[in-house]
Amino acid sequence: MDLARLRKAMATGGLDTVIAVSPENFYYATGSYIITQKSLRDRLALAVFPGDGEPVVIVCGIEQSLTQGTSRYPDIRTYVEFAESPISVLRDVLREKGASHGRVGIEMGYLSWRYAEELKRLCPETKFQECAGVFDNLRMYKLPHEVERLEAGARATARLINDAMQLLRPGDTERDLAVRLRHGLIDSGADEIAFLVLGTGPRSSITHPIPGDTRFQPGDVIKMDLGGLYGGYYSDVARTFGFGKPHPRKQDRYRRLAEIHRSVIERVQVGVRFCDIFDFCKTQFSEQGLQFHMPHIGHSLGTGLHEQPVVESSNTHVVDEGMIINIEPLFFDSEDGSGYHIEDLVQVTSKGPKVLTGSDLSVDMLWYCS
Amino acid sequence: MDLARLRKAMATGGLDTVIAVSPENFYYATGSYIITQKSLRDRLALAVFPGDGEPVVIVCGIEQSLTQGTSRYPDIRTYVEFAESPISVLRDVLREKGASHGRVGIEMGYLSWRYAEELKRLCPETKFQECAGVFDNLRMYKLPHEVERLEAGARATARLINDAMQLLRPGDTERDLAVRLRHGLIDSGADEIAFLVLGTGPRSSITHPIPGDTRFQPGDVIKMDLGGLYGGYYSDVARTFGFGKPHPRKQDRYRRLAEIHRSVIERVQVGVRFCDIFDFCKTQFSEQGLQFHMPHIGHSLGTGLHEQPVVESSNTHVVDEGMIINIEPLFFDSEDGSGYHIEDLVQVTSKGPKVLTGSDLSVDMLWYCS
Repeated sequence: MDLARLRKAMATGGLDTVIAVSPENFYYATGSYIITQKSLRDRLALAVFPGDGEPVVIVCGIEQSLTQGTSRYPDIRTYVEFAESPISVLRDVLREKGASHGRVGIEMGYLSWRYAEELKRLCPETKFQECAGVFDNLRMYKLPHEVERLEAGARATARLINDAMQLLRPGDTERDLAVRLRHGLIDSGADEIAFLVLGTGPRSSITHPIPGDTRFQPGDVIKMDLGGLYGGYYSDVARTFGFGKPHPRKQDRYRRLAEIHRSVIERVQVGVRFCDIFDFCKTQFSEQGLQFHMPHIGHSLGTGLHEQPVVESSNTHVVDEGMIINIEPLFFDSEDGSGYHIEDLVQVTSKGPKVLTGSDLSVDMLWYCS
Repeated sequence: MDLARLRKAMATGGLDTVIAVSPENFYYATGSYIITQKSLRDRLALAVFPGDGEPVVIVCGIEQSLTQGTSRYPDIRTYVEFAESPISVLRDVLREKGASHGRVGIEMGYLSWRYAEELKRLCPETKFQECAGVFDNLRMYKLPHEVERLEAGARATARLINDAMQLLRPGDTERDLAVRLRHGLIDSGADEIAFLVLGTGPRSSITHPIPGDTRFQPGDVIKMDLGGLYGGYYSDVARTFGFGKPHPRKQDRYRRLAEIHRSVIERVQVGVRFCDIFDFCKTQFSEQGLQFHMPHIGHSLGTGLHEQPVVESSNTHVVDEGMIINIEPLFFDSEDGSGYHIEDLVQVTSKGPKVLTGSDLSVDMLWYCS
């Protein structure tokens, strides 16, 4: 993260001090990846950015050595878990930096109610406000090293899905395929498997099915959505395939969705509003004769799995150079209970959208074990 | 979850209604595993338990089909993401159940400050209080199917660590071993890799090192801590090994820690207070001449990675039958920068502690590639 850009965003947002609390903003801001920040929520890691002066990082004592070796900022304070509260250390830092009486931004969408009550009690003189937007505005413009990681992750994930499908055999279950996909994520260099959902047949009509013992049946749809964490940055790719001999209705529904997908990606042009892309997608569903149910049809990603901009009906911001967005239309066929989902990563460039997933956006459904 | 037990715990806690908000309590309470509940925090999933009457489950619309197929409770309400707030649905449910004026417990350690403000605004007549303890008190007594999953996960994890160590070769890096461990977690049946930290040489002195390109050097310590999610239940096993020819000082430090580990496990007896187990461990460190730094030396686990009871100095509760506890002493040798960590899962029985990890608690350090 560029500290000068953060300070500019703070000034624009009318904030004297901001405090990063969530794993995605803490890692983005400090460069320290603390794995327990995700798994043990009470063990807070905080990064305090005063308007001037050095930033301060607050972590649990047992994460001190890790933080010292990885944090961009050398001023690291610690608390002893169960004996001391991270909030009292935060109070001390705010006082020391003369920030208590200023406009202090904190991630109210992440900090828990319990910690918020403690913070208000320990800092009665401070008026806190939401600062997620400050980080959102920074993170939505990707730096070159971020583009590199996101592209590498997206390509690797798309490729390993294709590789795993080549190994599909009659008699396989959802879990068999899921296990191959998980191995693929690891072999492709993912440090973590972020998520993996996969469903076939009627289970493809579930948005996020946990892969189970269901066997693939001839003519069935196989729908999947998965991602890994590559060097701290997420990948997120959805694909839909057929099993056995091509089934005309499913072939047709897939083609319609893929046409929509392609046309929506074409709309990711500098200056277009996100709500207009959403509305365009909705109209395309109607023109293709498909029911539309989605609250959003795309989102950015980075150190978080879903980041701003989100492509939804109330987002009036415009597409800009430096942004990277996943486009992911999803369709459920209520007549035969099949679900279809295609998701690709798109970079906004002055010359138009560039697909980073390595997909040719073919509209032909691929069938395996036919 | 046994609803009658929950209602008894609610009565004991003086609560008329409780609301599960965290992924661990939502899954425990409903049986529905919603993967986005962890990855997309704003997309709340809530389970409302009135003192009498049917429980109500509130999920994002796109998780409806999944929830219908897996929830113990058929009354499922939905909200449309970005257009509606889960909190307004919750307000309606509380009113409908006549719960608004009662004593309503909610997980204040999970619900965000932002949602809390909305909840207070929409329900000005309701006085909310923390209910995490109600769920903690239930979850700390494991049911037979929970013991089965925890034991299977712990054994599988301990076994795959041993298998991966057999494949260790001169020239290997931390990442090479980590990749084998990740494959092992998947092959052992884990649906998710919960976490994996691993460090060698001076990096073993970091509590949670992310495995990197460091090569194992003769005489170095290799310290690791990893876990998977097996059927919704966590495993969590730490091990320390040597690389190359046994190094006498490290051999000796390991033996001392392993002696402590064994003696602490022996103390996990019905009726003993957790703070006394903690103090006993601390005393053992002193007797073995090892520096003690740990804020806790053990914890339970289940649908959450760290659950109550936690073995720390302020926990005056006593060990009871039906509990399962990880014991995990950790030692950093400040003189040579090596770290040592051993963690095993222990079931409390009337006949004394039973180690579920399949370890014989040998105090001999194992050296590979010697």
